[in-house]
Amino acid sequence: MKPYAEMTREELQALRKELAGKYREFQGRDLKLDMSRGKPSVDQLDLSMGMMDVLSSDDDLTCDDGTDCRNYGVLDGISEAKELLADMMEVHSDQIIIYGNSSLNVMYDTISRSMTHGVMGNTPWCQLDKVKFLCPVPGYDRHFAITEYFGIEMINVPMLPTGPDMDMIDELVAKDESIKGVWCVPKYSNPQGISYSDDTVRRFARLKPAAKDFRIYWDNAYTIHHLYDWEQDHILEILAACKRAGNPDLAYKFASTSKISFPGSGIAAIAASQNNLVDIKKQLRIQTIGHDKVNQLRHVRFFGDIHGMMVHMKYHADILRPKFEAVNDILKRELDGLGIGTWTTPRGGYFMAFDSLDGCAKSIVSKCKKAGLIMTQAGATFPYGKDPHDSNIRIAPSYPPLDDLRIAMELFALCVKLVSVDKLLKEMPEQGKTAESKPIDDNKQ
Amino acid sequence: MKPYAEMTREELQALRKELAGKYREFQGRDLKLDMSRGKPSVDQLDLSMGMMDVLSSDDDLTCDDGTDCRNYGVLDGISEAKELLADMMEVHSDQIIIYGNSSLNVMYDTISRSMTHGVMGNTPWCQLDKVKFLCPVPGYDRHFAITEYFGIEMINVPMLPTGPDMDMIDELVAKDESIKGVWCVPKYSNPQGISYSDDTVRRFARLKPAAKDFRIYWDNAYTIHHLYDWEQDHILEILAACKRAGNPDLAYKFASTSKISFPGSGIAAIAASQNNLVDIKKQLRIQTIGHDKVNQLRHVRFFGDIHGMMVHMKYHADILRPKFEAVNDILKRELDGLGIGTWTTPRGGYFMAFDSLDGCAKSIVSKCKKAGLIMTQAGATFPYGKDPHDSNIRIAPSYPPLDDLRIAMELFALCVKLVSVDKLLKEMPEQGKTAESKPIDDNKQ
Repeated sequence: MKPYAEMTREELQALRKELAGKYREFQGRDLKLDMSRGKPSVDQLDLSMGMMDVLSSDDDLTCDDGTDCRNYGVLDGISEAKELLADMMEVHSDQIIIYGNSSLNVMYDTISRSMTHGVMGNTPWCQLDKVKFLCPVPGYDRHFAITEYFGIEMINVPMLPTGPDMDMIDELVAKDESIKGVWCVPKYSNPQGISYSDDTVRRFARLKPAAKDFRIYWDNAYTIHHLYDWEQDHILEILAACKRAGNPDLAYKFASTSKISFPGSGIAAIAASQNNLVDIKKQLRIQTIGHDKVNQLRHVRFFGDIHGMMVHMKYHADILRPKFEAVNDILKRELDGLGIGTWTTPRGGYFMAFDSLDGCAKSIVSKCKKAGLIMTQAGATFPYGKDPHDSNIRIAPSYPPLDDLRIAMELFALCVKLVSVDKLLKEMPEQGKTAESKPIDDNKQ
Repeated sequence: MKPYAEMTREELQALRKELAGKYREFQGRDLKLDMSRGKPSVDQLDLSMGMMDVLSSDDDLTCDDGTDCRNYGVLDGISEAKELLADMMEVHSDQIIIYGNSSLNVMYDTISRSMTHGVMGNTPWCQLDKVKFLCPVPGYDRHFAITEYFGIEMINVPMLPTGPDMDMIDELVAKDESIKGVWCVPKYSNPQGISYSDDTVRRFARLKPAAKDFRIYWDNAYTIHHLYDWEQDHILEILAACKRAGNPDLAYKFASTSKISFPGSGIAAIAASQNNLVDIKKQLRIQTIGHDKVNQLRHVRFFGDIHGMMVHMKYHADILRPKFEAVNDILKRELDGLGIGTWTTPRGGYFMAFDSLDGCAKSIVSKCKKAGLIMTQAGATFPYGKDPHDSNIRIAPSYPPLDDLRIAMELFALCVKLVSVDKLLKEMPEQGKTAESKPIDDNKQ
């Protein structure tokens, strides 16, 4: 089929009629499909059921240094859990603090602490007139929700195939002292699945921000979340890069086991320089006596070590890979050459990003919904929910079973076509009144 | 033996010599005893080992409403956990939010949110010149640490046998709009073990604070932590009392299972009015996707219901009761009638409070330490660590085994005697130079 843009009005109208018929068929199937969030599937959850068996009442819940994990204490995590997560995060175990079940919560607390107490002795942000964050877009909606909640002004920075536009970041942070941070998902980014190039990471490490309390919020959520065994992305380790660049305190690194063991029942961590860790612990010891050590021990006993964790991740990949491939196959089959959308094909992570023609994303997501498919809300991948081109849609292939996913993607592709045809028809130079006097309404008839 | 205050200088000097000899004996025993924190003992931890068996890989981790506890989601807790903790907290399950492993963390987050976003639409505290909290004293050091960390000015309010001095609180909150809260441990208080009288609770509920965003921070940490089966304290339920008094939004109620299941691996909760809960959830949904539901389910499966939890608490009581009684027995045997100290004998909770002669607490704790016994730091029970009378010492009988506890309390009583004799000798009107020219130094000879 030829590109839609090259079609005549008559061809588009005929196509529209055909597509609308197919759409009504989908509506008649009473589908209930959800691709809105990056949730692991039930099959993936089943992989970790062994976690429920590694600690029993016959087991000794004492950790290597003699600490009884059942009682109070240990602010920054038991040593064996620090080692496991440090290996996962590619840092040394003395560079990390283990938290509770959510790295999002750690990021929130990091911003909150900066608001009330400042960063390493600098003025608390709540005492400043203006605080700004750089937001590579498209990005993760929950990052943007945190900064918006604290009244932090967000500045869009376009994502390139190599990562965020570093020329723009370089220039902005150098001249504006009110810019205090940048959100990054550096590996298999949310939603595009882009991994930052070595040059990008080095340029991050070498930033010369005007603000002494500027920090890179390096959310390495998908650090070992590969889809393929051999074709894996690798990014430079940011803390080491910062240290080499003479900026040892420039980055906070976040991660968790949420998409490794059980989401919501995993363990999270922050990695940072000693100066940053000392600063963080000053607050942490006021906030808590310590996080859940039994769950830390459970993770260590289940995975054994980082090798055990990597083996475990292969089982996740075996479940996720066919889903990512099915999405790509269906989009390719349905949309290739039509000129109405592009999409990413990442080698890891939890998302793919689809870019429609400008001004179509909201309508596509809305059309999907009316036929029983929930996609991530259009705009969600941008600060304030505002996609300036209204074109980016996040695809989350992980949760639905493969058969459902195929149906969902066929429906999605159909909606892309329908909305694109509508757009093209609407933008076509007028030829007479007849054609436009009978708009087809999918929801009636 | 007669009261020390009635002894002559010669009698005191002879006594001092005898006591110093006994103290040196203790020093020779190389003791390592720790009574500094309210930690459950190993025996108590063993009571909950069954928690490690209630969820296995053969079990279904789906909760009553069909939610898969292993995956993301459920912001405010699974319904069965809400019911269990609501029963424990004497509220309805729609009045609570389940959190992670630490009620201290919930309290910290509550203050932090008030600093950055204010309480129910009122001005964020970080934008105010002055924020003050009322602190019934003696009280819980970690409460005071939170308010101090946020630069909140703390005002001491004396504890009476019925609870805090309500005349003082009434007057202060009515006239000073900068007073935004009061810390309360209303049942088996930390450290005295006092339970607030019905009149005290009602007066709390009827407060007319000048500040609309004033809240009672009701840390009901020991709500079912009785030592005796029949002699139990009962306090009025604060949220119901506030509602009746026409002040439904006046209180936040906190609790956790830290001293019921495993400290550090339990579940915590806040209970409050719907207005407060809506206000809290606005923030909570930005901070996290949800807390550890598997651990919530584990608690529900282990305890079954509130009756199961109450039965479990009897086993705790059976371990704790002899320890509290031993402390009282030894203090009575050693100190009764000497006029050098008083102590509380609570019917629940984790602490007893000892009051020495003015100006002696620090020396007593220091003397204990030099013989191998760590007590809670003197002054810790007061804001800023400053006990104006230097007389209050927190006794935490829970952690050491009974035999160690007996030794510890004998040593403690001895130190009380020694320091009291020193104080009395020092304050005695001079009779000549001879007596004072030879101070006895316990650490030499």
